[in-house]
Amino acid sequence: MKLLQERIVRDGNVKSGNVLKVDNFLNHQMDIELFNEIGKEFKRIFSDLKITKILTIEASGIGIACITAQYFKVPVVFAKKAQSINIDGEVYSTKIESFTHKKTYDVIVSKKFISPEDKVLIIDDFLANGCALAGLIDLVRSASASVEGIGIVIEKGFQNGGEMIRSMGVRLESLAIIESMNAENGSIIFRDE
Amino acid sequence: MKLLQERIVRDGNVKSGNVLKVDNFLNHQMDIELFNEIGKEFKRIFSDLKITKILTIEASGIGIACITAQYFKVPVVFAKKAQSINIDGEVYSTKIESFTHKKTYDVIVSKKFISPEDKVLIIDDFLANGCALAGLIDLVRSASASVEGIGIVIEKGFQNGGEMIRSMGVRLESLAIIESMNAENGSIIFRDE
Repeated sequence: MKLLQERIVRDGNVKSGNVLKVDNFLNHQMDIELFNEIGKEFKRIFSDLKITKILTIEASGIGIACITAQYFKVPVVFAKKAQSINIDGEVYSTKIESFTHKKTYDVIVSKKFISPEDKVLIIDDFLANGCALAGLIDLVRSASASVEGIGIVIEKGFQNGGEMIRSMGVRLESLAIIESMNAENGSIIFRDE
Repeated sequence: MKLLQERIVRDGNVKSGNVLKVDNFLNHQMDIELFNEIGKEFKRIFSDLKITKILTIEASGIGIACITAQYFKVPVVFAKKAQSINIDGEVYSTKIESFTHKKTYDVIVSKKFISPEDKVLIIDDFLANGCALAGLIDLVRSASASVEGIGIVIEKGFQNGGEMIRSMGVRLESLAIIESMNAENGSIIFRDE
Protein backbone atom coordinates (compact mmCIF):
# COMPACT_ATOMS: atom_id res chain seq x y z
CA MET A 1 0.00 0.00 0.00
CA LYS A 2 1.82 3.00 -1.37
CA LEU A 3 0.27 5.62 0.93
CA LEU A 4 1.23 3.59 3.98
CA GLN A 5 4.80 2.95 2.79
CA GLU A 6 5.24 6.68 2.19
CA ARG A 7 3.92 7.45 5.64
CA ILE A 8 6.25 4.91 7.27
CA VAL A 9 9.23 6.44 5.45
CA ARG A 10 8.16 9.98 6.35
CA ASP A 11 7.12 9.51 9.98
CA GLY A 12 8.55 6.17 11.05
CA ASN A 13 11.65 6.11 13.20
CA VAL A 14 14.07 3.18 13.11
CA LYS A 15 15.61 2.44 16.51
CA SER A 16 18.27 -0.05 17.47
CA GLY A 17 17.06 -3.53 18.37
CA ASN A 18 14.82 -3.77 15.29
CA VAL A 19 12.34 -1.31 16.75
CA LEU A 20 10.26 0.71 14.29
CA LYS A 21 8.47 3.55 16.02
CA VAL A 22 5.29 4.59 14.24
CA ASP A 23 3.68 6.04 17.32
CA ASN A 24 2.79 9.35 15.69
CA PHE A 25 0.24 7.81 13.33
CA LEU A 26 -0.40 4.16 14.18
CA ASN A 27 -0.14 3.00 17.77
CA HIS A 28 -0.15 5.90 20.21
CA GLN A 29 -1.37 8.86 18.21
CA MET A 30 -3.71 7.51 15.53
CA ASP A 31 -4.35 9.15 12.17
CA ILE A 32 -7.98 8.23 11.57
CA GLU A 33 -7.94 9.42 7.95
CA LEU A 34 -5.11 6.98 7.26
CA PHE A 35 -6.99 4.29 9.21
CA ASN A 36 -9.91 4.75 6.82
CA GLU A 37 -7.64 4.20 3.83
CA ILE A 38 -6.28 1.10 5.56
CA GLY A 39 -9.82 -0.14 6.23
CA LYS A 40 -10.79 0.34 2.59
CA GLU A 41 -7.68 -1.51 1.47
CA PHE A 42 -8.44 -4.48 3.73
CA LYS A 43 -11.97 -4.56 2.30
CA ARG A 44 -10.56 -4.49 -1.24
CA ILE A 45 -8.07 -7.28 -0.53
CA PHE A 46 -10.57 -9.49 1.28
CA SER A 47 -13.62 -8.57 -0.83
CA ASP A 48 -14.14 -12.24 -1.79
CA LEU A 49 -14.54 -13.34 1.83
CA LYS A 50 -17.76 -13.58 3.80
CA ILE A 51 -16.73 -12.22 7.21
CA THR A 52 -19.01 -12.29 10.24
CA LYS A 53 -16.63 -10.87 12.83
CA ILE A 54 -13.35 -9.03 13.17
CA LEU A 55 -11.04 -10.12 15.99
CA THR A 56 -8.13 -8.08 17.30
CA ILE A 57 -6.13 -7.78 20.50
CA GLU A 58 -5.86 -4.87 22.86
CA ALA A 59 -4.69 -2.22 22.73
CA SER A 60 -3.21 -0.91 19.50
CA GLY A 61 -5.17 -3.21 17.19
CA ILE A 62 -8.54 -1.86 18.35
CA GLY A 63 -8.57 1.41 16.42
CA ILE A 64 -7.65 -0.17 13.09
CA ALA A 65 -10.12 -3.00 13.68
CA CYS A 66 -13.03 -0.63 14.47
CA ILE A 67 -12.44 1.61 11.46
CA THR A 68 -11.99 -1.45 9.21
CA ALA A 69 -15.20 -3.01 10.56
CA GLN A 70 -17.20 -0.16 9.02
CA TYR A 71 -16.30 -1.49 5.58
CA PHE A 72 -17.22 -5.08 6.44
CA LYS A 73 -20.32 -4.12 8.48
CA VAL A 74 -19.51 -6.62 11.24
CA PRO A 75 -18.84 -6.31 14.98
CA VAL A 76 -15.34 -6.23 16.42
CA VAL A 77 -14.21 -8.41 19.32
CA PHE A 78 -10.97 -7.62 21.05
CA ALA A 79 -9.05 -10.25 22.99
CA LYS A 80 -8.07 -9.05 26.44
CA LYS A 81 -4.76 -9.41 28.19
CA ALA A 82 -5.05 -10.97 31.66
CA GLN A 83 -8.15 -11.81 33.61
CA SER A 84 -10.61 -9.11 34.57
CA ILE A 85 -13.28 -9.59 37.22
CA ASN A 86 -15.67 -7.99 34.74
CA ILE A 87 -15.40 -11.06 32.49
CA ASP A 88 -17.66 -14.01 33.08
CA GLY A 89 -16.22 -17.41 33.82
CA GLU A 90 -16.66 -18.79 30.36
CA VAL A 91 -13.73 -17.66 28.23
CA TYR A 92 -11.36 -19.11 25.69
CA SER A 93 -7.79 -18.42 26.73
CA THR A 94 -4.32 -18.71 25.29
CA LYS A 95 -0.85 -17.57 26.25
CA ILE A 96 1.07 -14.95 24.29
CA GLU A 97 4.68 -14.06 24.83
CA SER A 98 5.45 -10.37 24.41
CA PHE A 99 9.02 -9.53 23.49
CA THR A 100 8.26 -5.82 23.81
CA HIS A 101 7.21 -6.14 27.41
CA LYS A 102 9.32 -9.22 28.14
CA LYS A 103 6.52 -11.24 29.69
CA THR A 104 3.85 -13.81 28.96
CA TYR A 105 0.21 -12.78 28.97
CA ASP A 106 -2.93 -14.80 29.37
CA VAL A 107 -5.18 -13.60 26.58
CA ILE A 108 -8.88 -14.28 26.74
CA VAL A 109 -12.05 -13.86 24.77
CA SER A 110 -15.53 -14.54 26.04
CA LYS A 111 -17.07 -17.71 24.59
CA LYS A 112 -20.23 -15.68 23.93
CA PHE A 113 -18.51 -13.73 21.18
CA ILE A 114 -17.01 -16.40 18.94
CA SER A 115 -19.28 -19.17 17.70
CA PRO A 116 -18.54 -22.20 15.51
CA GLU A 117 -20.34 -20.56 12.56
CA ASP A 118 -18.21 -17.40 12.74
CA LYS A 119 -15.97 -16.53 9.81
CA VAL A 120 -13.31 -14.40 11.40
CA LEU A 121 -11.01 -11.76 9.97
CA ILE A 122 -8.12 -11.08 12.35
CA ILE A 123 -6.76 -7.53 12.23
CA ASP A 124 -3.64 -6.23 13.97
CA ASP A 125 -1.22 -3.36 13.60
CA PHE A 126 2.07 -5.27 13.69
CA LEU A 127 3.44 -8.68 12.84
CA ALA A 128 6.95 -9.52 14.01
CA ASN A 129 7.53 -12.92 15.64
CA GLY A 130 3.89 -13.91 15.24
CA CYS A 131 3.21 -14.85 18.86
CA ALA A 132 0.18 -12.58 19.19
CA LEU A 133 -1.28 -13.79 15.89
CA ALA A 134 -0.72 -17.43 16.73
CA GLY A 135 -2.57 -16.81 19.99
CA LEU A 136 -5.51 -15.18 18.21
CA ILE A 137 -5.70 -18.06 15.71
CA ASP A 138 -5.69 -20.44 18.66
CA LEU A 139 -8.61 -18.57 20.27
CA VAL A 140 -10.68 -18.74 17.06
CA ARG A 141 -9.95 -22.43 16.57
CA SER A 142 -10.82 -23.14 20.23
CA ALA A 143 -14.28 -21.86 19.32
CA SER A 144 -14.37 -24.17 16.25
CA ALA A 145 -14.76 -21.02 14.16
CA SER A 146 -12.71 -20.39 11.02
CA VAL A 147 -9.97 -17.85 10.41
CA GLU A 148 -10.85 -16.61 6.93
CA GLY A 149 -8.02 -14.14 6.73
CA ILE A 150 -5.53 -12.02 8.62
CA GLY A 151 -4.91 -8.37 7.81
CA ILE A 152 -1.76 -6.73 9.18
CA VAL A 153 -0.77 -3.11 8.77
CA ILE A 154 3.03 -3.49 9.09
CA GLU A 155 4.90 -6.79 8.87
CA LYS A 156 8.54 -7.01 9.83
CA GLY A 157 9.55 -9.32 6.99
CA PHE A 158 12.97 -9.95 8.49
CA GLN A 159 11.42 -11.67 11.50
CA ASN A 160 9.90 -15.11 11.20
CA GLY A 161 6.26 -14.46 12.16
CA GLY A 162 4.98 -14.05 8.60
CA GLU A 163 6.55 -17.29 7.43
CA MET A 164 5.34 -19.15 10.51
CA ILE A 165 1.72 -17.97 10.11
CA ARG A 166 1.65 -18.51 6.32
CA SER A 167 3.00 -22.04 6.79
CA MET A 168 -0.11 -22.73 8.91
CA GLY A 169 -2.12 -22.36 5.70
CA VAL A 170 -3.78 -19.14 6.83
CA ARG A 171 -4.32 -16.33 4.33
CA LEU A 172 -2.22 -13.45 5.63
CA GLU A 173 -2.03 -10.07 3.92
CA SER A 174 0.21 -7.28 5.17
CA LEU A 175 -0.21 -3.77 3.78
CA ALA A 176 3.50 -3.01 4.17
CA ILE A 177 6.25 -5.59 4.57
CA ILE A 178 9.60 -4.29 5.74
CA GLU A 179 12.42 -6.28 4.19
CA SER A 180 15.14 -4.55 6.18
CA MET A 181 15.80 -1.42 8.14
CA ASN A 182 18.86 0.31 9.45
CA ALA A 183 18.95 2.17 12.75
CA GLU A 184 22.20 3.96 11.84
CA ASN A 185 20.97 5.77 8.75
CA GLY A 186 17.23 5.34 9.31
CA SER A 187 16.68 3.59 5.98
CA ILE A 188 13.70 1.31 5.43
CA ILE A 189 13.45 -1.13 2.51
CA PHE A 190 10.08 -2.67 1.65
CA ARG A 191 9.45 -6.06 0.09
CA ASP A 192 8.15 -5.74 -3.47
CA GLU A 193 4.40 -6.07 -3.66
CA MET B 1 -29.45 9.17 24.11
CA LYS B 2 -32.54 7.05 23.60
CA LEU B 3 -30.96 4.43 21.33
CA LEU B 4 -28.18 3.84 23.84
CA GLN B 5 -30.55 3.60 26.82
CA GLU B 6 -32.65 1.06 24.95
CA ARG B 7 -29.58 -0.96 24.12
CA ILE B 8 -28.39 -0.91 27.74
CA VAL B 9 -31.80 -2.14 28.90
CA ARG B 10 -31.92 -4.82 26.21
CA ASP B 11 -28.36 -6.14 26.33
CA GLY B 12 -26.89 -4.86 29.59
CA ASN B 13 -26.59 -7.20 32.51
CA VAL B 14 -26.67 -5.94 36.09
CA LYS B 15 -24.40 -7.92 38.40
CA SER B 16 -23.90 -7.65 42.12
CA GLY B 17 -21.29 -5.16 43.32
CA ASN B 18 -22.63 -2.39 41.07
CA VAL B 19 -21.24 -4.05 37.97
CA LEU B 20 -23.02 -3.35 34.68
CA LYS B 21 -21.90 -5.73 31.98
CA VAL B 22 -22.25 -4.25 28.49
CA ASP B 23 -19.58 -6.44 26.98
CA ASN B 24 -21.73 -7.61 24.10
CA PHE B 25 -21.85 -4.18 22.46
CA LEU B 26 -19.48 -1.76 24.19
CA ASN B 27 -16.29 -3.02 25.73
CA HIS B 28 -15.44 -6.52 24.56
CA GLN B 29 -17.59 -7.09 21.51
CA MET B 30 -18.12 -3.71 19.89
CA ASP B 31 -21.16 -2.75 17.80
CA ILE B 32 -19.62 -0.36 15.29
CA GLU B 33 -22.99 0.81 13.95
CA LEU B 34 -23.93 1.90 17.47
CA PHE B 35 -20.47 3.48 17.86
CA ASN B 36 -21.21 5.61 14.81
CA GLU B 37 -24.45 6.84 16.36
CA ILE B 38 -22.51 7.61 19.54
CA GLY B 39 -19.85 9.48 17.56
CA LYS B 40 -22.50 11.56 15.77
CA GLU B 41 -24.14 12.38 19.11
CA PHE B 42 -20.85 13.55 20.63
CA LYS B 43 -20.33 15.75 17.57
CA ARG B 44 -23.83 17.18 17.97
CA ILE B 45 -23.37 17.87 21.69
CA PHE B 46 -19.93 19.41 21.28
CA SER B 47 -20.56 21.11 17.93
CA ASP B 48 -19.67 24.51 19.40
CA LEU B 49 -16.17 23.41 20.39
CA LYS B 50 -13.02 23.68 18.31
CA ILE B 51 -11.29 20.38 19.03
CA THR B 52 -7.76 19.58 17.85
CA LYS B 53 -7.33 16.18 19.43
CA ILE B 54 -9.26 13.38 21.09
CA LEU B 55 -7.67 11.72 24.11
CA THR B 56 -8.75 8.38 25.53
CA ILE B 57 -7.23 5.58 27.58
CA GLU B 58 -6.58 2.00 26.60
CA ALA B 59 -8.23 -0.32 26.00
CA SER B 60 -12.00 0.01 25.83
CA GLY B 61 -12.06 3.76 25.12
CA ILE B 62 -10.10 3.39 21.89
CA GLY B 63 -12.86 2.09 19.64
CA ILE B 64 -15.36 4.80 20.63
CA ALA B 65 -12.67 7.48 20.35
CA CYS B 66 -11.60 6.40 16.84
CA ILE B 67 -15.12 6.25 15.45
CA THR B 68 -15.97 9.59 17.12
CA ALA B 69 -12.81 11.19 15.69
CA GLN B 70 -14.20 10.72 12.19
CA TYR B 71 -16.87 13.31 12.98
CA PHE B 72 -14.37 15.79 14.46
CA LYS B 73 -11.68 15.11 11.82
CA VAL B 74 -8.90 15.06 14.41
CA PRO B 75 -6.33 12.47 15.50
CA VAL B 76 -6.82 10.25 18.54
CA VAL B 77 -4.19 9.77 21.23
CA PHE B 78 -4.61 6.98 23.72
CA ALA B 79 -2.94 7.08 27.12
CA LYS B 80 -1.09 3.87 27.89
CA LYS B 81 -1.09 1.87 31.07
CA ALA B 82 2.43 1.13 32.40
CA GLN B 83 5.77 1.84 30.81
CA SER B 84 6.65 0.24 27.50
CA ILE B 85 10.19 0.09 26.18
CA ASN B 86 8.71 1.25 22.87
CA ILE B 87 7.94 4.66 24.39
CA ASP B 88 10.60 7.34 24.37
CA GLY B 89 11.77 8.90 27.61
CA GLU B 90 9.72 12.04 27.30
CA VAL B 91 6.25 11.30 28.59
CA TYR B 92 3.66 12.89 30.83
CA SER B 93 2.58 10.42 33.49
CA THR B 94 -0.06 10.12 36.16
CA LYS B 95 -1.34 7.42 38.47
CA ILE B 96 -4.79 5.90 38.13
CA GLU B 97 -6.36 3.56 40.63
CA SER B 98 -8.47 0.82 39.07
CA PHE B 99 -11.17 -0.66 41.26
CA THR B 100 -11.98 -3.24 38.60
CA HIS B 101 -8.47 -4.64 38.61
CA LYS B 102 -7.70 -3.64 42.20
CA LYS B 103 -4.40 -1.96 41.41
CA THR B 104 -2.77 1.36 40.61
CA TYR B 105 -1.49 2.00 37.10
CA ASP B 106 1.05 4.44 35.83
CA VAL B 107 -0.58 6.01 32.80
CA ILE B 108 1.51 7.84 30.26
CA VAL B 109 1.24 9.84 27.10
CA SER B 110 4.14 10.96 24.96
CA LYS B 111 4.89 14.67 25.25
CA LYS B 112 5.04 14.76 21.44
CA PHE B 113 1.31 14.24 21.17
CA ILE B 114 -0.17 16.89 23.46
CA SER B 115 0.95 20.49 22.95
CA PRO B 116 -0.01 23.67 24.86
CA GLU B 117 -2.13 24.82 21.92
CA ASP B 118 -4.18 21.59 21.87
CA LYS B 119 -7.90 21.76 22.59
CA VAL B 120 -8.67 18.29 23.82
CA LEU B 121 -11.87 16.30 23.90
CA ILE B 122 -11.58 13.37 26.29
CA ILE B 123 -13.66 10.32 25.35
CA ASP B 124 -14.19 7.20 27.44
CA ASP B 125 -16.70 4.39 27.67
CA PHE B 126 -17.44 4.48 31.42
CA LEU B 127 -17.44 6.93 34.28
CA ALA B 128 -17.81 5.53 37.79
CA ASN B 129 -15.50 6.87 40.49
CA GLY B 130 -13.75 9.20 38.05
CA CYS B 131 -10.18 8.10 38.76
CA ALA B 132 -9.37 7.41 35.10
CA LEU B 133 -10.88 10.73 33.97
CA ALA B 134 -9.07 12.71 36.66
CA GLY B 135 -5.85 11.10 35.45
CA LEU B 136 -6.54 12.04 31.82
CA ILE B 137 -7.35 15.63 32.82
CA ASP B 138 -4.08 15.70 34.76
CA LEU B 139 -2.16 14.54 31.67
CA VAL B 140 -3.71 17.26 29.49
CA ARG B 141 -3.01 19.95 32.06
CA SER B 142 0.57 18.73 32.48
CA ALA B 143 0.97 19.63 28.82
CA SER B 144 -0.57 23.08 29.45
CA ALA B 145 -3.27 22.12 26.95
CA SER B 146 -6.96 22.66 27.63
CA VAL B 147 -9.69 20.10 28.26
CA GLU B 148 -12.55 21.50 26.19
CA GLY B 149 -14.95 18.74 27.01
CA ILE B 150 -15.39 15.16 28.18
CA GLY B 151 -17.72 12.72 26.45
CA ILE B 152 -18.71 9.57 28.31
CA VAL B 153 -20.89 6.76 26.98
CA ILE B 154 -22.24 5.42 30.29
CA GLU B 155 -22.02 7.23 33.61
CA LYS B 156 -22.86 5.48 36.84
CA GLY B 157 -24.72 8.39 38.38
CA PHE B 158 -24.86 6.70 41.77
CA GLN B 159 -21.06 6.82 42.09
CA ASN B 160 -19.29 10.08 42.79
CA GLY B 161 -17.09 10.44 39.69
CA GLY B 162 -19.49 12.64 37.74
CA GLU B 163 -19.93 15.08 40.61
CA MET B 164 -16.21 15.16 41.28
CA ILE B 165 -15.31 15.90 37.65
CA ARG B 166 -18.10 18.47 37.16
CA SER B 167 -16.99 20.27 40.35
CA MET B 168 -13.60 20.76 38.66
CA GLY B 169 -15.37 23.07 36.21
CA VAL B 170 -14.92 20.71 33.28
CA ARG B 171 -17.75 20.29 30.76
CA LEU B 172 -18.77 16.66 31.07
CA GLU B 173 -21.52 15.08 28.97
CA SER B 174 -22.64 11.48 29.42
CA LEU B 175 -24.88 9.87 26.83
CA ALA B 176 -26.57 7.67 29.44
CA ILE B 177 -26.53 8.29 33.18
CA ILE B 178 -27.65 5.42 35.35
CA GLU B 179 -29.45 6.64 38.45
CA SER B 180 -29.78 3.23 39.99
CA MET B 181 -29.71 -0.42 39.12
CA ASN B 182 -30.72 -3.60 40.85
CA ALA B 183 -28.84 -6.86 40.51
CA GLU B 184 -31.74 -8.90 41.91
CA ASN B 185 -34.34 -8.01 39.31
CA GLY B 186 -32.00 -6.56 36.68
CA SER B 187 -33.77 -3.19 36.58
CA ILE B 188 -31.94 -0.07 35.38
CA ILE B 189 -33.23 3.46 36.01
CA PHE B 190 -31.76 6.36 34.03
CA ARG B 191 -31.43 9.95 35.16
CA ASP B 192 -33.84 12.20 33.25
CA GLU B 193 -32.13 13.97 30.40
